[in-house]
Amino acid sequence: MRQVAIGIDIGGTNTAIGVVDREGNVLYEKQPQLPTPQKRENPYAKIDKSDELCTNYIAALSDEVRVAIETVKNINPDLQVMGIGIGAPNANYYRGTIEFAANLPFVGVVQLADLLQAKLPEINIIKVTNDANAAALGELIYGGGIGMHNFVMITLGTGLGSGIIVNGDLVYGQDGFAGELGHVTIIPEGRACGCGGKGHLETYCSATGIKRSVFEMLAKNNNSESLLANIPFNDMTAKMVYDAAEKGDPIALEVFEYSGELLGRSLADTVHYLSPEAIFLFGGAAAAGDYIFKPTKESMERYLLPVYRNKVQILPSKLKEGSAAIVGASALVWKELDKISS
Amino acid sequence: MRQVAIGIDIGGTNTAIGVVDREGNVLYEKQPQLPTPQKRENPYAKIDKSDELCTNYIAALSDEVRVAIETVKNINPDLQVMGIGIGAPNANYYRGTIEFAANLPFVGVVQLADLLQAKLPEINIIKVTNDANAAALGELIYGGGIGMHNFVMITLGTGLGSGIIVNGDLVYGQDGFAGELGHVTIIPEGRACGCGGKGHLETYCSATGIKRSVFEMLAKNNNSESLLANIPFNDMTAKMVYDAAEKGDPIALEVFEYSGELLGRSLADTVHYLSPEAIFLFGGAAAAGDYIFKPTKESMERYLLPVYRNKVQILPSKLKEGSAAIVGASALVWKELDKISS
Repeated sequence: MRQVAIGIDIGGTNTAIGVVDREGNVLYEKQPQLPTPQKRENPYAKIDKSDELCTNYIAALSDEVRVAIETVKNINPDLQVMGIGIGAPNANYYRGTIEFAANLPFVGVVQLADLLQAKLPEINIIKVTNDANAAALGELIYGGGIGMHNFVMITLGTGLGSGIIVNGDLVYGQDGFAGELGHVTIIPEGRACGCGGKGHLETYCSATGIKRSVFEMLAKNNNSESLLANIPFNDMTAKMVYDAAEKGDPIALEVFEYSGELLGRSLADTVHYLSPEAIFLFGGAAAAGDYIFKPTKESMERYLLPVYRNKVQILPSKLKEGSAAIVGASALVWKELDKISS
Repeated sequence: MRQVAIGIDIGGTNTAIGVVDREGNVLYEKQPQLPTPQKRENPYAKIDKSDELCTNYIAALSDEVRVAIETVKNINPDLQVMGIGIGAPNANYYRGTIEFAANLPFVGVVQLADLLQAKLPEINIIKVTNDANAAALGELIYGGGIGMHNFVMITLGTGLGSGIIVNGDLVYGQDGFAGELGHVTIIPEGRACGCGGKGHLETYCSATGIKRSVFEMLAKNNNSESLLANIPFNDMTAKMVYDAAEKGDPIALEVFEYSGELLGRSLADTVHYLSPEAIFLFGGAAAAGDYIFKPTKESMERYLLPVYRNKVQILPSKLKEGSAAIVGASALVWKELDKISS
């Protein structure tokens, strides 16, 4: 009997739902994705768990899980669904909750795993974690982390997320929230962070951070020749910076050098904490390839204690950008089965 | 039958050897301590493992272990020696080695566990780790970390060492060298570190860092009234800064505020990585009590993401200063027995 897991990724706009086998192949993915409930016009009028919007969302989610199961079983009746893994912002693995998520409309704490379990009593495993942790598990179970016991996953998107694997398992910490490397201080009193802090890693090295660096460099160098000098702040993307770098644009090249210098210094700190075998980079900014990997690697090596030098690989994630979210979430199920059987 | 473990701490000057029971009571300690081999006059003429000095040291060490065992067995013949735990600089848990230790006279890699095992074939467990990791295990097995699964130990001495406990075990990383928080960057391009780097945590927050801050503050404020203004650099100790703070000396008070501000910011990063239940401070600088704990705690809370606030305790170590080294080292044995039985 072929075993499969259901992966769910709850994003700010949409919720992706898919069925994944033990090798990471996506057998089914709901299209179009299920809309995630949106904030109301008054952003303070959040959605209570007793609220119709929350109830309806959980009902729709469980309906879509049933559709997914039926669809794959119609193709292969021998499939056995082993459980559901869910990636979501501010998700808590220990409690199965989403807690105070700034980008979701729910009030306080949503008992996601319990609510879904009540709708789907036949499912044995329902586990929840944040999206970067899910990506790290995906890398461990299906990707470049197969066979590794200690590595760190860095997701470079709008923000900068991370998941830490130590001794073959995710580091959740005392409360299920460990691994927020986007919010370590990299430049004391530096750029304003969305969290209210200053100088955090994600304000420099996420896709948004790269954009901010372009405008800082333009301000510093007054370079009107740059291909990036004609694009408004709100239109600029990390992809545009990459395209400009490909054409030799000096601002774009300087921005990648600068981002790599800072990311490398921060990853040297990561190595001083954890001494991992590898650090995987995932997401849009990581797609810039050598423009970001080369200066990051050089910088990290420069800041490492001698005992760690030339031991830690910085690698692109092997997860596919399009399916990584549901594939990563589904990995929670296999990890849980490993724990039960060990 | 009462079980005991042997704890050995190899310091730059002396080697401490003791016998410790499961509750952390020291039943025997060799006095005076065994001298650690010293560097020769030419510091480049290091001691090879085939060298007489190394051979003699291992022989003396195993002789002293036998003396320790005989002494405690004379008092209580029912004692059962379960193994030997060794704390040493640059010690590698996986390989049982001391590797390229700057403060010891050995060349390259010393196969410490193997050499000692050959002399003491009747001992079943011989394990080695660095002194800060041993202290963390001591806190876990005998101290304030009993019952905790995630905490960090910071030792504030001449340098700043650390040991990280995740899911109830030490984080060793890929190579046995994880947990060098003394060398994370806290002020980019800041103070020169003994390792060759700049702005590392230990250059500000170790006992030596506190001394350096006194001279920086004196230089900044030109405060000739300070009690610390009459003490040469080479004579100043963290204890003197504490005594001056007790008398209300403004330089001493400012130095503790500054050290706490930086240590707290760095510990906020630690929480963003690991979300531990507690962070223990151990050693001379930690003896300054509220002068260091209060500003450190306030600073850490200020730099934490909201989700972590008021969750992480900063606590003084419960290990006794005098016996912590051998007690911590002996904890390696109980940890190993736990692993074997689980």
